[in-house]
Amino acid sequence: MATEGLGFLGLGIMGVAMAKNLLKLGVPVCVWNRSPEKCDALVAMGATAAKSPAEVILKSKITFGMLADPAVALTVAFGPGGVVESIMPGKAYVDMSTVDAETSMTISKAITEKGGRFLEAPVSGSKKPAEDGQLVILAAGDESLFNDAGAAFDVMGKKSFFLGEVGNGARMKLVVNMIMGSMMTAFAEGLSLAEKAGLSQNDLLDVLDLGAIANGMFKLKGPSCIKGSFAPAFPLKHQQKDMRLALALGDEVAQTMPVAAAANEVYKKARTLGFGDNDFSAVYKAIADSS
Amino acid sequence: MATEGLGFLGLGIMGVAMAKNLLKLGVPVCVWNRSPEKCDALVAMGATAAKSPAEVILKSKITFGMLADPAVALTVAFGPGGVVESIMPGKAYVDMSTVDAETSMTISKAITEKGGRFLEAPVSGSKKPAEDGQLVILAAGDESLFNDAGAAFDVMGKKSFFLGEVGNGARMKLVVNMIMGSMMTAFAEGLSLAEKAGLSQNDLLDVLDLGAIANGMFKLKGPSCIKGSFAPAFPLKHQQKDMRLALALGDEVAQTMPVAAAANEVYKKARTLGFGDNDFSAVYKAIADSS
Amino acid sequence: MATEGLGFLGLGIMGVAMAKNLLKLGVPVCVWNRSPEKCDALVAMGATAAKSPAEVILKSKITFGMLADPAVALTVAFGPGGVVESIMPGKAYVDMSTVDAETSMTISKAITEKGGRFLEAPVSGSKKPAEDGQLVILAAGDESLFNDAGAAFDVMGKKSFFLGEVGNGARMKLVVNMIMGSMMTAFAEGLSLAEKAGLSQNDLLDVLDLGAIANGMFKLKGPSCIKGSFAPAFPLKHQQKDMRLALALGDEVAQTMPVAAAANEVYKKARTLGFGDNDFSAVYKAIADSS
Amino acid sequence: MATEGLGFLGLGIMGVAMAKNLLKLGVPVCVWNRSPEKCDALVAMGATAAKSPAEVILKSKITFGMLADPAVALTVAFGPGGVVESIMPGKAYVDMSTVDAETSMTISKAITEKGGRFLEAPVSGSKKPAEDGQLVILAAGDESLFNDAGAAFDVMGKKSFFLGEVGNGARMKLVVNMIMGSMMTAFAEGLSLAEKAGLSQNDLLDVLDLGAIANGMFKLKGPSCIKGSFAPAFPLKHQQKDMRLALALGDEVAQTMPVAAAANEVYKKARTLGFGDNDFSAVYKAIADSS
Repeated sequence: MATEGLGFLGLGIMGVAMAKNLLKLGVPVCVWNRSPEKCDALVAMGATAAKSPAEVILKSKITFGMLADPAVALTVAFGPGGVVESIMPGKAYVDMSTVDAETSMTISKAITEKGGRFLEAPVSGSKKPAEDGQLVILAAGDESLFNDAGAAFDVMGKKSFFLGEVGNGARMKLVVNMIMGSMMTAFAEGLSLAEKAGLSQNDLLDVLDLGAIANGMFKLKGPSCIKGSFAPAFPLKHQQKDMRLALALGDEVAQTMPVAAAANEVYKKARTLGFGDNDFSAVYKAIADSS
Repeated sequence: MATEGLGFLGLGIMGVAMAKNLLKLGVPVCVWNRSPEKCDALVAMGATAAKSPAEVILKSKITFGMLADPAVALTVAFGPGGVVESIMPGKAYVDMSTVDAETSMTISKAITEKGGRFLEAPVSGSKKPAEDGQLVILAAGDESLFNDAGAAFDVMGKKSFFLGEVGNGARMKLVVNMIMGSMMTAFAEGLSLAEKAGLSQNDLLDVLDLGAIANGMFKLKGPSCIKGSFAPAFPLKHQQKDMRLALALGDEVAQTMPVAAAANEVYKKARTLGFGDNDFSAVYKAIADSS
Repeated sequence: MATEGLGFLGLGIMGVAMAKNLLKLGVPVCVWNRSPEKCDALVAMGATAAKSPAEVILKSKITFGMLADPAVALTVAFGPGGVVESIMPGKAYVDMSTVDAETSMTISKAITEKGGRFLEAPVSGSKKPAEDGQLVILAAGDESLFNDAGAAFDVMGKKSFFLGEVGNGARMKLVVNMIMGSMMTAFAEGLSLAEKAGLSQNDLLDVLDLGAIANGMFKLKGPSCIKGSFAPAFPLKHQQKDMRLALALGDEVAQTMPVAAAANEVYKKARTLGFGDNDFSAVYKAIADSS
Repeated sequence: MATEGLGFLGLGIMGVAMAKNLLKLGVPVCVWNRSPEKCDALVAMGATAAKSPAEVILKSKITFGMLADPAVALTVAFGPGGVVESIMPGKAYVDMSTVDAETSMTISKAITEKGGRFLEAPVSGSKKPAEDGQLVILAAGDESLFNDAGAAFDVMGKKSFFLGEVGNGARMKLVVNMIMGSMMTAFAEGLSLAEKAGLSQNDLLDVLDLGAIANGMFKLKGPSCIKGSFAPAFPLKHQQKDMRLALALGDEVAQTMPVAAAANEVYKKARTLGFGDNDFSAVYKAIADSS
């Protein structure tokens, strides 16, 4: 890591936690947020605040972004006072937002055309891992930037991957979420079958937890499915969107995915039944409910 | 556990290991096997050998069976010199073989009609857990017998469940294997999609292993799928049979299971392609292969 | 056709109509029915009535049966005064009931062991075609009997097929019903998609009816789906049973059938929703309904 | 129909036949084609030729277009000398090309903003029905234009539908093709199951053809599947694209379509196996083939 400073754009729940961890590196950190009052806590800890993304870029060797969605990521990049305005040779931008491959490629093109370096680096993990510096970072794009950002990734995450060309970070997230979505549906089928076949659902959870397919998701979602509690950690409509996008990716490369396709239709049924804003584990309702 | 002795029928790979663990209880253990020379090792360790299942029953308060398949389990129960011949009030039989619910119910009926007690108790786990006394025991049937067999289960397994009426042990195994079979197919789809989409399959395995759906099966089967190595730990044709039986159970109780149904068709395709005797992870071949 | 007489067992809605057509051949016809009063109409038209299936066999060169289901077919064959009692060389039995391959094979074995000839000959078509002599006859078993029964088949049906060994008649019906069941589900998906996408369902029916996939089922079931009228012509639970049996046949011969498997799960869902006794077109409800 | 003339853009196989039929109305017909020599035959029959789409629009009250694909349709509308250049109040454009809803809506917007009237009117039917004036016309957009074009539709088609807002023509085609694609896959499953189960595939075709689901597609594609002849009438890759687009439409409106989703995955598998340029009935190969 160079002795020059780091920048951070976007101080939502995730961003605040990640920026705080950057301060541990002992280099200057310059932050920006749409609502400027969110910067106060960071400033109190030693960061400086800037008035625009462009200003952060100018003051930092490497700037990280953690924005809410593709639309915000595009605005922060291309809007007035945005990243692209002041990017130049010697400057680098690492977009850690969860966006689609196309959005990443659009931002990448604009930045590299002006001589800057770009990395997409979506993360896996939510608030707690962000605070604990235990995120998993899926980076893709400029490999020299991946190396230069290594110390920063080390304080924000427990592990960072370099996945090749821009877009691969987004694609990797899709593949992982697709497997997760199919697994959750298979799990819902098993839970519901157990009950209808006269078995105890809690026994099933205990048996599963002792075997080769024991995993954190079953442990977490099993009891809440049984209770019928579906407060959204990851909203079902977003899971379904990821299933759809993964299937679209499969379509593009002619990969047959019959299980994911079947699971996707169950998520769609769950949306029709009104569970789109519930947790994705509410797919259980589309499997279990009768008249 | 009563001070009287225990019996053990069937000294295959699993049975030998389980019977050895029973010897640790310090009570007399009487064993029988179709090929009598398999008894020698146990006798050397302090067991006595009997000439028939019926003789074991007579000499033991509780007799355990670990037979190869439903046909053998039925022969040992109903054949000449079989369990049913000498079962009577005060005697108990625990069939730990993996059989279907109907086979268990047939044996149960014959034993209880003669005044004996019966428990089906299929296990989850193979050779190593059997040797280490780390099996998971899925018992169903006579609850007083479950309690009386507690000390024996404790030396053979790490955990034993009482699941209710006879048949529920078999049903629980089916539900677990169905979830496993769907998961494996979803995993195969993800692995193959990753490759076609230009991602590294090893990166995918690493990313999965750091997240909420990390599990032993992905860890074990992922590298072997990538290598194309499908030496049978659990043969694909048996996994497909379990998918079919789980779907039949779902049919009986009107439980829709679209993901399991889709996965089952992929296992059938894999059978058609000639992978029935390979490991069930060879379902990957039916997903990944092109012309 | 020999100059000797014909027999007919089972005078339900179908049987009465079929037996009446046999009278047109101008040979003696001997009939039997469990409730003997059902014979009166036939007797008035020139038939004679017998007191048991065995008596019909004795009086007839070829006897036809049209029984309600496999259980009745087995009783008529094996019960006291049943077909098997008096079957002998020179006698022949043609079972036109809709039964599974195994039932047919059981009856066939008993009859051929006593020197008789046997043919299974399930029909496609209901009351009206039976009356009009327009059934489609799916015969399998003894080919010489198929030829000897030709004149009788000609007055009962518009077309008869000889399909080979006993069981093939039942199997052919399963294959046809499986295609029908998948088609109906695909049709339901299209009907429901049309409505949600803002198209007129009646326009869709009209467009379909002008194209290459126009068929009688769409013409018949389309308007009733739109009206939500599902009076049972062919009960959904029977259609689902046929899907299940066809999938089981596919399992046996390792034939992958992902579309039939997906459709079967929708029929199961419809059963769960309480539509088992409605017409099979009520699968539309499992596809179309939302919260 | 007004006494003023009609225009026709695009004289491919379909367009030539359709324009010839327009001549029967006895009104002036002005034609244009990218390769001008294609106009000669029409001119010989009494049409006049123009140098650009814009010129045709100027000379005609209603102009019809039949272009190869969305890209050509957009070029003919928006390119230099295109339809939009000279459209104005009193002029009307009917695009009969097969394009997606979005393309139709883009062209519609441009035309109506300049005061013209627009109708999308994709057709069902190929060369022969085009020559015989037996197309099915799926029109949507300006209803007054639909009425004004009635006489023209009557000579080109056997039936025309007005389906509401622009985009509905494209959507109706998708729904119909989705049902067709699922049906073809179900049919392939039945054909292959028949063979593996020891039934004659030709018998199956004959039985199907006598029943309620008899239809032209089974009659046409059945024998060619059996022969393994898949010369493209409708290429598999286009059928798969339509399945994908129909599923995307279902996604948009939250319509679950498990059978179409399963069928789509089979088409994708068939693409992977190299059958994308064969007839869509080659989906049979993905169902039937073994190792």
